[in-house]
Amino acid sequence: MNYKAFHKLSYGLYIIASEFEGTRSGYIGNTAFQVTSSPPQIAISCHKNNDTHGIILKSGVFSLSVLKKEASTSLIGEFGFMASSEMDKFAKVKTEVHSTGAPVVLDSSLAWFDCRVVQTLDVGSHTLFVGEVAESQLLSDDEPLTYEYYREKYKMLAPRNAPTYIEKDKLTEEPSAKPSAPQPDQTGMASADPDDEEEYICAICGYVYRPDDGDLAAGIPPGTPFSELPEDYRCPICNAGKDYFKPMG
Amino acid sequence: MNYKAFHKLSYGLYIIASEFEGTRSGYIGNTAFQVTSSPPQIAISCHKNNDTHGIILKSGVFSLSVLKKEASTSLIGEFGFMASSEMDKFAKVKTEVHSTGAPVVLDSSLAWFDCRVVQTLDVGSHTLFVGEVAESQLLSDDEPLTYEYYREKYKMLAPRNAPTYIEKDKLTEEPSAKPSAPQPDQTGMASADPDDEEEYICAICGYVYRPDDGDLAAGIPPGTPFSELPEDYRCPICNAGKDYFKPMG
Repeated sequence: MNYKAFHKLSYGLYIIASEFEGTRSGYIGNTAFQVTSSPPQIAISCHKNNDTHGIILKSGVFSLSVLKKEASTSLIGEFGFMASSEMDKFAKVKTEVHSTGAPVVLDSSLAWFDCRVVQTLDVGSHTLFVGEVAESQLLSDDEPLTYEYYREKYKMLAPRNAPTYIEKDKLTEEPSAKPSAPQPDQTGMASADPDDEEEYICAICGYVYRPDDGDLAAGIPPGTPFSELPEDYRCPICNAGKDYFKPMG
Repeated sequence: MNYKAFHKLSYGLYIIASEFEGTRSGYIGNTAFQVTSSPPQIAISCHKNNDTHGIILKSGVFSLSVLKKEASTSLIGEFGFMASSEMDKFAKVKTEVHSTGAPVVLDSSLAWFDCRVVQTLDVGSHTLFVGEVAESQLLSDDEPLTYEYYREKYKMLAPRNAPTYIEKDKLTEEPSAKPSAPQPDQTGMASADPDDEEEYICAICGYVYRPDDGDLAAGIPPGTPFSELPEDYRCPICNAGKDYFKPMG
């Protein structure tokens, strides 16, 4: 089995959202595709551990918003790497409600689909939800964000719940790392390694800080070692603090 | 319902192939995605009218080859727009057989997956086949062909059996057009319209010949009206003869 082969499958990136009895939930997924044209149906693969999974099961509806190429990194961080049960991901984003009642996220989106679940298939760790598209809309003719571009731009790994997640030694050493429960060995790593060239990985989302690149969006020039980042530096993807970064080794 | 929204979903392009009791069948599909990582499973949506559909149902196996960006147009034409029952699509391509017995197409491919069907889901016009990946291989680190690039490069419509097919007036007027049974009104169109700027669409696959662009791969310079194309001109995608082209009107 060659796992790098899986990186050659192409995907877009989407916000999938649902609502049940006042509780809204959403996440970022790459595994969505149209399965029939008449009637139009879209299938998504959703991890059973995902908060949104339970909400879709109960509500029988979901929305799918297509992220544009220049989607907001904080939106990706919050919808992609935080749990809906831990924060209101919808507090800062503009949404609409259409025929199914699912919240449709408009920020950073260029098209959306409002879907009613017509079939589900248990595929093990995930459920395939097949949704009939009740309504769809094109918001702009911008380029969609592709999973390849996202991986390349952010040097990212997939989130753990993604069907396309591939375990990395560095992350599997600490599979239970959570923002709310930092492990002692994850803190203070900045001063533990004096190598200015050392790359650091965010244990939460897999983003890699590379001194050669810096983090221009955060005003960090190329050539800045991890140890010299300000103490309030945060992961540009998932917003985790500096303590959650560890050396690539 | 806005159908242009569906064009914002991102896909790769793949050759899906199978074999049962000596009969090989294959087609080009864009609707394939990984649905779980452990074990690795890939789902495809396959039209029931597709020859390969019946072969996969009987054999319970399929291969998926990831096409590279510069894939051969004749391979795309043959696998994408011809029926396996009408020609041996495998005659000219290099294949291998691995653990499942499905033929794995290597030409124009940069990775492949050899899969055993573990579940099927009837979604109407199509069947979702969920395959557990028995073997996978990366052949090169080239860029994969994306559906967007393909549509843009070839100004193409999706083949009729694709889940992403959207009917166009021009094609729905003659839904039964087949290479083996040309209709009288489809022949001799070249001389029927004197407009040198007129664009012509291939009634078989939807490729559009644009005089402004010509067809450089076939040695046709930009500015060549359709009426001046050689009589043996063939569609660069599906290989259909000139008679199958009709004016866009």
